[in-house]
Amino acid sequence: MNVLLRGRRQPFRTVTFDAARNAVVLIEQRLLPHRFELLATPDYRATARAIRDMVVRGAPAIAATAAYGLAQGARTFRGSSLTAFERQVEKVFTTLHAARPTAVDPLNAMRQVRAAMATGESVAERQALALAAAEEFANRSAEECAALGQHGAALIGEGLNVLTHCNAGWLACVDFGTATAPLYAAQAEGRRFHVFCDETRPRCQGASLTAWELAQQGIAHHVIADNAAGHLMQRGEIDLVIVGSDRVLGRTGEIANKIGTYTKAVLARRHGLPFYVAIPRSTIDWTLKSGAEIPIEERDESEVLGAWGVTAKGQPRCYVRIANPSSPARNPGFDVTPAELITGIITPAGIFAPRKLWRRRRELGWAE
Amino acid sequence: MNVLLRGRRQPFRTVTFDAARNAVVLIEQRLLPHRFELLATPDYRATARAIRDMVVRGAPAIAATAAYGLAQGARTFRGSSLTAFERQVEKVFTTLHAARPTAVDPLNAMRQVRAAMATGESVAERQALALAAAEEFANRSAEECAALGQHGAALIGEGLNVLTHCNAGWLACVDFGTATAPLYAAQAEGRRFHVFCDETRPRCQGASLTAWELAQQGIAHHVIADNAAGHLMQRGEIDLVIVGSDRVLGRTGEIANKIGTYTKAVLARRHGLPFYVAIPRSTIDWTLKSGAEIPIEERDESEVLGAWGVTAKGQPRCYVRIANPSSPARNPGFDVTPAELITGIITPAGIFAPRKLWRRRRELGWAE
Repeated sequence: MNVLLRGRRQPFRTVTFDAARNAVVLIEQRLLPHRFELLATPDYRATARAIRDMVVRGAPAIAATAAYGLAQGARTFRGSSLTAFERQVEKVFTTLHAARPTAVDPLNAMRQVRAAMATGESVAERQALALAAAEEFANRSAEECAALGQHGAALIGEGLNVLTHCNAGWLACVDFGTATAPLYAAQAEGRRFHVFCDETRPRCQGASLTAWELAQQGIAHHVIADNAAGHLMQRGEIDLVIVGSDRVLGRTGEIANKIGTYTKAVLARRHGLPFYVAIPRSTIDWTLKSGAEIPIEERDESEVLGAWGVTAKGQPRCYVRIANPSSPARNPGFDVTPAELITGIITPAGIFAPRKLWRRRRELGWAE
Repeated sequence: MNVLLRGRRQPFRTVTFDAARNAVVLIEQRLLPHRFELLATPDYRATARAIRDMVVRGAPAIAATAAYGLAQGARTFRGSSLTAFERQVEKVFTTLHAARPTAVDPLNAMRQVRAAMATGESVAERQALALAAAEEFANRSAEECAALGQHGAALIGEGLNVLTHCNAGWLACVDFGTATAPLYAAQAEGRRFHVFCDETRPRCQGASLTAWELAQQGIAHHVIADNAAGHLMQRGEIDLVIVGSDRVLGRTGEIANKIGTYTKAVLARRHGLPFYVAIPRSTIDWTLKSGAEIPIEERDESEVLGAWGVTAKGQPRCYVRIANPSSPARNPGFDVTPAELITGIITPAGIFAPRKLWRRRRELGWAE
């Protein structure tokens, strides 16, 4: 998507590869929204560190980073022994996987790169195939988001007020985003609308990242406290809710997403408002049989007890403690929204009722 | 209630009067939860400033402060002319009223003090009557909270998990609080239970003030993001919700309270959980005919775009900007919860279904 730099709009992807320098080029997301900087990782170890330290976040974005990282590591091999080359590739694979071991997307992405390499007959050929496969993965990931954006754009009518939660934007993907892709597509089709960004405590990805994205793209928006959406719905100021997801159960239509998503779905139902979930194919989990099986990560209490921001003097990422010093906090990171509260799942293959995913599983790329 | 100072529990009221020094003694709430300090206002102007600058907040607490402030101002008069004395009293009244002109409670409190003074035949007698009336107002206010706490305590069974929103604690009253009074009463009756404190963005009164109160009182609690309550209800970790209110409509049973209250009521209904509102008599508005008539204050956007806290170096009340610098925010301060979502209104005269308030209006002190 576009970034406004020194008064000029420039297109950027969250993750790209600089073949001449053999470097993965990432947007340094920890500095956003206060500073826009690119980070070029000089080797695969630096790429793994960037994943681990959250320079890049969001499952599709991490997957592309890992795919590029594997090609990057393969390309540094000097010599002609295929056995020694494969040993190097395994080491790179393991290092990148260990950087975010719970996510399934980077693992799948690297497996695709490794499978593509296997057809090469020399080290040089395999190195070239690795990079081509990584590029293909990233392109396909961006195309999936573009495609779901096209399907979702029809929902974003002129003058609508849309609520979104957390950041399911292009910063979490290679490009376009998931929940944001329909917005960007509707804007490209010439429609004007307005977005409320839930700030999304405790990490405030809505206030920082989603608001930054929308500002860069020139989409009218306001940040609101997570507490405010119910009141705005009561007053008729919200027409539609779109969120992303960390895992959609293909068998039941339940979705897991950032904490607070479920609350917005309950409010939308009370007010008769449509509630959509936008996802690429890789987010669908075809194996789990119930949302109760989804592990809900309990994150560090410091996130709830304070906040990170910029001081008046410009000191970035300053942590301030908000809560009473002797009080503990609970910090579940995600929640599960049942299918009955979801109007539709926006996918690259179209918009489906959540309980219809299973019937469309071949179309949605499930290889049984 | 008790405050733990230097390892010793000491009883404190939010507002008291030091007759020897002719000073209103307040807990300096802007320093909480990070520092406990008392502020003694040397004259009525300083008392008005303390109200305006939020040293003291919460309608019942401000009302007692204004009542004492009026007595304080009356007591500084030197001379025997009743006419000159009444001129002074009017000046004090006007100054204190201007410090928080929208609140109805301090106005009512000062009118009571003024009415009591009128029976005195000399300046000295009126000065004594003023202080006695202010003391009586504060005592009655504390007794009302104690009484509603007794009624509400029966709801707080052994081992219960209670959710509360914002601070409707003793810091907002003269003593005991409204939403917290049933908790303190249940604790005094020997029951153990656990409280989830919604942090209550944007000003985080739950994370700072309610958590501080519960910690001082030794009640088990956790702070949670406002986003987390829905998930905890899904998992069966919340049994009951109690909140305070800024205005309860006696005719309809609707309640206005801190933004986010309505959302918790909607969630409670979905999960079949009881939702209670605890109030003193003065919170009931017998005139408005619909919640839509309640003015909802839109507060400054800086509250949503950032947060106040203590830095690692101990700098108190440091503001950090969280949101994207070019993004605006909406910040409605309150919302309205309809009677159908409210299980009961806990009052000093008992617990009533919200739609039954009108029928009990004489019992609830409505002088038609």
